[in-house]
Amino acid sequence: MHTDTASLQRDAGQTLAQQLAQRFSQRIQQRLLLPGSRLPSVRECARHHRVSPYTVVAAYDQLLAAGLVEARKQRGFFVRDLRPQPVAPGRSDPPRPPVGIPQGVPLDATALIRGMFQADARHAPGLGTLPGDWLDLPLLQSAMRRVLAQTDGDDPLALQYGEPGGDLRLRQALARRLDDLGISAPADQIVSTVGATHALDLITRRLLQPGDAVLVDDPGWSIEYARLSQAGMRLLPVPRGADGPDMAVMTQLAQEHRPRMYVTVSVLHNPTGGTLSLARAHQILKLAESQDFQIVEDDTYASMAPNHAPRLSALDGLRRTLYVSGFSKILTPAWRVGFVAAAPEVVAQLTEQKLLTTLTTSPLMDRAVAVCLEQGTLRRHAERVIARLDAARQRVVPLAEAAGCRFVTPPAGLFGWLEVGMDTERLAQRMLDEGWLIAPGVLFSATRQAGSLMRINFATSQDARFWRRLQAMREERLR
Amino acid sequence: MHTDTASLQRDAGQTLAQQLAQRFSQRIQQRLLLPGSRLPSVRECARHHRVSPYTVVAAYDQLLAAGLVEARKQRGFFVRDLRPQPVAPGRSDPPRPPVGIPQGVPLDATALIRGMFQADARHAPGLGTLPGDWLDLPLLQSAMRRVLAQTDGDDPLALQYGEPGGDLRLRQALARRLDDLGISAPADQIVSTVGATHALDLITRRLLQPGDAVLVDDPGWSIEYARLSQAGMRLLPVPRGADGPDMAVMTQLAQEHRPRMYVTVSVLHNPTGGTLSLARAHQILKLAESQDFQIVEDDTYASMAPNHAPRLSALDGLRRTLYVSGFSKILTPAWRVGFVAAAPEVVAQLTEQKLLTTLTTSPLMDRAVAVCLEQGTLRRHAERVIARLDAARQRVVPLAEAAGCRFVTPPAGLFGWLEVGMDTERLAQRMLDEGWLIAPGVLFSATRQAGSLMRINFATSQDARFWRRLQAMREERLR
Repeated sequence: MHTDTASLQRDAGQTLAQQLAQRFSQRIQQRLLLPGSRLPSVRECARHHRVSPYTVVAAYDQLLAAGLVEARKQRGFFVRDLRPQPVAPGRSDPPRPPVGIPQGVPLDATALIRGMFQADARHAPGLGTLPGDWLDLPLLQSAMRRVLAQTDGDDPLALQYGEPGGDLRLRQALARRLDDLGISAPADQIVSTVGATHALDLITRRLLQPGDAVLVDDPGWSIEYARLSQAGMRLLPVPRGADGPDMAVMTQLAQEHRPRMYVTVSVLHNPTGGTLSLARAHQILKLAESQDFQIVEDDTYASMAPNHAPRLSALDGLRRTLYVSGFSKILTPAWRVGFVAAAPEVVAQLTEQKLLTTLTTSPLMDRAVAVCLEQGTLRRHAERVIARLDAARQRVVPLAEAAGCRFVTPPAGLFGWLEVGMDTERLAQRMLDEGWLIAPGVLFSATRQAGSLMRINFATSQDARFWRRLQAMREERLR
Repeated sequence: MHTDTASLQRDAGQTLAQQLAQRFSQRIQQRLLLPGSRLPSVRECARHHRVSPYTVVAAYDQLLAAGLVEARKQRGFFVRDLRPQPVAPGRSDPPRPPVGIPQGVPLDATALIRGMFQADARHAPGLGTLPGDWLDLPLLQSAMRRVLAQTDGDDPLALQYGEPGGDLRLRQALARRLDDLGISAPADQIVSTVGATHALDLITRRLLQPGDAVLVDDPGWSIEYARLSQAGMRLLPVPRGADGPDMAVMTQLAQEHRPRMYVTVSVLHNPTGGTLSLARAHQILKLAESQDFQIVEDDTYASMAPNHAPRLSALDGLRRTLYVSGFSKILTPAWRVGFVAAAPEVVAQLTEQKLLTTLTTSPLMDRAVAVCLEQGTLRRHAERVIARLDAARQRVVPLAEAAGCRFVTPPAGLFGWLEVGMDTERLAQRMLDEGWLIAPGVLFSATRQAGSLMRINFATSQDARFWRRLQAMREERLR
């Protein structure tokens, strides 16, 4: 019950049972509890929330009455499969399915992912970010104070919509940063966005059309699958190994389906931690050339990787590649700053799309990142994070192996990709009951296949108790 | 040349001609200079930028060589009509038109609108916002400092992605504000967004499908037309008068085309300044009921209107209405905070869509608005703005009438809607040459019809010299 850290209020004008029912209802609506999943036992839930079992029974009854859960004899309460309701009351047409979502694509997994961003880091080996105490709050506060101090003058930053492309000082600082990565992109080939997610969304909407085929890494990032699917794209999953995508599969898919785009995390790939080899990067670009598709290089983990890691965008010179990155993983997710670097005509199109979706980004947030880049504070902070992650990996790898797990790809960066030897979706439910949030492989599968893989976050997997529980569960051989 | 306030640099490693050519090129790419529009005369341009006529000729030659402009004998240089280029170099397919854009819809006008947000307010009677010096910088700075001071503690706001629905304190403050407007929406029926634009975008993407028919006010807001068109919707323009939409036309369109939605600014409508009468609001809701469509009430100018102005969402109780608003017009555009209030199941869908497009909004910016709402500073500031706008209107109305213009709707709020008695698109070009940015009617026409209407901003139209020039141009009877 990680998301329920706030305790129930005894004087809130609502009964405890009502409050509890509301929390579950919220989790179900937000799909943090997926259809088919079991609610905690009455006893467990009562202990967790420090209420009487009667209160829990009353809360579950309310959920039952609201049609959110169903009771199964001898087995407990389960979340019902709620089909989307028609929106306008009284509309007589049958509810329409979401546009272009192929069967089996994990749209609702995207909501589960929220949990990975909001969990208590101490009990979340599946966390999707660095834990808060790995971030540098004084650095952030100082940058923000500096931005506020810079808002004087005739035309204060604090009163503006901001440039269509984003704060110029940010784009200039990004241009220098990209130069360090071997990517040549002047400020006017960069457009800032509301985090990397917004960058990927602008690209999907502007450069693709419903029905287009798109190559994606499998395993990969569920939000990206979900966005592409929801926008009506046909996903072409390519198996991703330690060195990069399987070229034989990719070539065949490209020849058969004529994709318009390949979306990939080339460096410190999520979830495998793998980084493209230079040779594979070259092969991908040759295929893109011969089959005429674009490549979106999502470099979200750039700051945790060495500058010399090969980037497709560097090899290609941003001709048919678009480079996307952001600062949520290394600085703070609270600022919501990301960007795209691409060819001039592409940047012009994305800037227009940005206008239609958010008008502009906040010039204050853009500038705050600029300050961190200009002063070198981001770079020094990233170096400390890299060293700390190295130490964390050295601790976690033997713990994981001693628990009977095997690393599918060599451990690197923030995430490890593990073969656990048991169904990890069931494992996730069991672990959740005991207070641990893990990230089962199904969340990273383009075809939403359950399996025995699991992603761990090296920063939040250092607690030996977690690995002991995992080992015990493996030995129990869960049904 | 309002957007070119920075002077050319004599030591920038580029010739002055190159710099000048680059600026024009940028304005053309951003469509601040539309296809067909004339560049300033060489003499004018030289004077404006304090360079020699030779420099201007060299710059224009570069634009000519780049294919951005064409020379017409005896008439000067004109911006060429640049069709979108295919994105991937070497792609052999013909360039694809944007999805579902009906003929004649002003997609490129949306970019022109950027000028309305970035112009020098002293010379921009067409400005789309309050001028910077009408905003309250100390209020904003103090709110931001307070937010930074609140980011201590175990789980600092500055390190979080933020709640999927947006900062809870913001949503609670918004719930109280909505209650003042007669709209009952608890915090969990509200989702925060990156400005009102993002709110409207989430709605378009989640609740509509390409091909759907959507009723819009005509005149209305170009960005909204452009977004809906680009998303593949069929626009059904309804003439908008002082009291609201023309019900006869609306009824007929609704019966013929079965629209799914009506998007409207009910209070202080942009550009007319009109507010729905209570009777008209009731008629609209009855029609929506019988024809079964939803209504998006965009209340962007809420803070400049009395609380008792009738809101469709209040009448309807958010059953088939969605209420959208934001704070860019009254607090600052730099924060990018807006929101939607709607029925619970709609809010759940929009929250999921928000996750796919920007993951979350910045909890810092959300909280800053919450602080302004909680402390009453926003309300007091809005009262001052309203009083100042009243005074500005009292000054502007006689000036405009003395210049031969007629108010189409009774003056109210921020914007006035004027019959000028001459083609305002041409007038805009003439005025631009003399340094005044105006907002011609074509920017607010769903069918992009040129005409003799113009929107003025009462705050920025107080300079008697502008009205004298306008009168002189009317008397010249421009071809």
